Amino acid sequence: MRWCRFESEGRISFGIVEGDSIIKVDGNPFEEHSITERRLPFANVNLLVPLIPRTFYAAGINYRDHVIKMAAITGREGQIPQSADIGYRAHNALIPHDQPIILPRDATDRTQYEGELVVVIGKRAKHITKEEALDHVFGFTIGNDFSERTWQAGDRGLWRAKNSDTFKPMGPWIETDVDLDQMKTIIRVNGNEKDNFKTNNMIFDIPTYMSRMSDYMALEPGDVIWMGTDGVPENVKAGDTVEIEITGIGTLRNSIEKEE
Amino acid sequence: MRWCRFESEGRISFGIVEGDSIIKVDGNPFEEHSITERRLPFANVNLLVPLIPRTFYAAGINYRDHVIKMAAITGREGQIPQSADIGYRAHNALIPHDQPIILPRDATDRTQYEGELVVVIGKRAKHITKEEALDHVFGFTIGNDFSERTWQAGDRGLWRAKNSDTFKPMGPWIETDVDLDQMKTIIRVNGNEKDNFKTNNMIFDIPTYMSRMSDYMALEPGDVIWMGTDGVPENVKAGDTVEIEITGIGTLRNSIEKEE
Repeated sequence: MRWCRFESEGRISFGIVEGDSIIKVDGNPFEEHSITERRLPFANVNLLVPLIPRTFYAAGINYRDHVIKMAAITGREGQIPQSADIGYRAHNALIPHDQPIILPRDATDRTQYEGELVVVIGKRAKHITKEEALDHVFGFTIGNDFSERTWQAGDRGLWRAKNSDTFKPMGPWIETDVDLDQMKTIIRVNGNEKDNFKTNNMIFDIPTYMSRMSDYMALEPGDVIWMGTDGVPENVKAGDTVEIEITGIGTLRNSIEKEE
Repeated sequence: MRWCRFESEGRISFGIVEGDSIIKVDGNPFEEHSITERRLPFANVNLLVPLIPRTFYAAGINYRDHVIKMAAITGREGQIPQSADIGYRAHNALIPHDQPIILPRDATDRTQYEGELVVVIGKRAKHITKEEALDHVFGFTIGNDFSERTWQAGDRGLWRAKNSDTFKPMGPWIETDVDLDQMKTIIRVNGNEKDNFKTNNMIFDIPTYMSRMSDYMALEPGDVIWMGTDGVPENVKAGDTVEIEITGIGTLRNSIEKEE
């Protein structure tokens, strides 16, 4: 099932995507809700980020090839993480599918996409085992962990490098039924394929992260965990369009503009 | 004016604190709202965190004495930050005044309070000057940036060091009228004063942070910025009670328990 969130006639609703239609839902998928009779043409609504997360978790470095290849390019030693320590991203930066990423006025030309699987929590999880983890997942969406690399290397923390407004596209919807081991992440810039990797080929898989996190923080419905990217992102610039496809979910597409 | 958020008879509302009473408000202080005729005794309600932030910003190191004294104790060189780079804390960790901080099972005995002024944004701010900044502030509350120092030194990032469940007490309410330069932050453990510092004696003051942040991220109503702590926090343990008073706002009090 594909859950989306949209605005139509000034009202924000959740909905279920079926072909070219959205079936309106009263309430939200994480609480009691009812599926209405109302169908809207998909093309007629404004798609929003599929949920506003409670806590916005992000794994950061979580693919071996990414570490090795980035190290080869930068000449710095690559560090494979030793444990599933989670990080964070910021709510202000979220935008939906099809809205532009806006490069801040003083951003350098070292701005890059990162295509990521996003886990959406559906059921409270505290002190869970790895075996129990996936039962607490509601579904999956796609994230672009857009980054300004000069700031990432020079600033304290990742604030503007990773969290400038519009730097966190998420969507287009939440897919509840996937086969993690069959999924591929495909990244295209202006239609040209740039990366193609097995989505579930992570250093620490989703159950490992969820189990470890849950020893310290209750995962709650509406939390999201961005799972990191593989491959070697390239620079993109104003005028480019980035597409992140994850097979079994869909495609998140965002163009890039420069702030005036 | 003192704004609080509370639960009474299963319903969550905002309210205005007047002496021993709370005047119930319909709606929230950041949007259209109406002050009702209903008064509740303050002692009869469950106080909640005074708001659920949209983005949860935290300045981290922001007092010169804190850097110098901590360096003297640890024997490591103290780093005075060179620019107002913001950081983040996590929503899962928030608890209100008077709820216990729960130490995770495997936390070491190096757990410490940090008493901080919290800025609550009231009006959207993008590309603002320092002079304009305070016009965008709704009010101020108090935060305890509770920390597990062993994890803080050893983990990637601050996830469980700073963001374990219950590690971010915030409250008791939001005060809209303060004189920043007159305020003092006083920290007590079990009634004994441990620190006492000028609240506004920051390395980068509130307008400096807000102006710089606003060049990259729109500050929105309901965002919070925790402004850092001064002094040298001491270890606290299960059974202790930490009080953080900021004159002109009030006192945030939380006891400490060990997870079972």
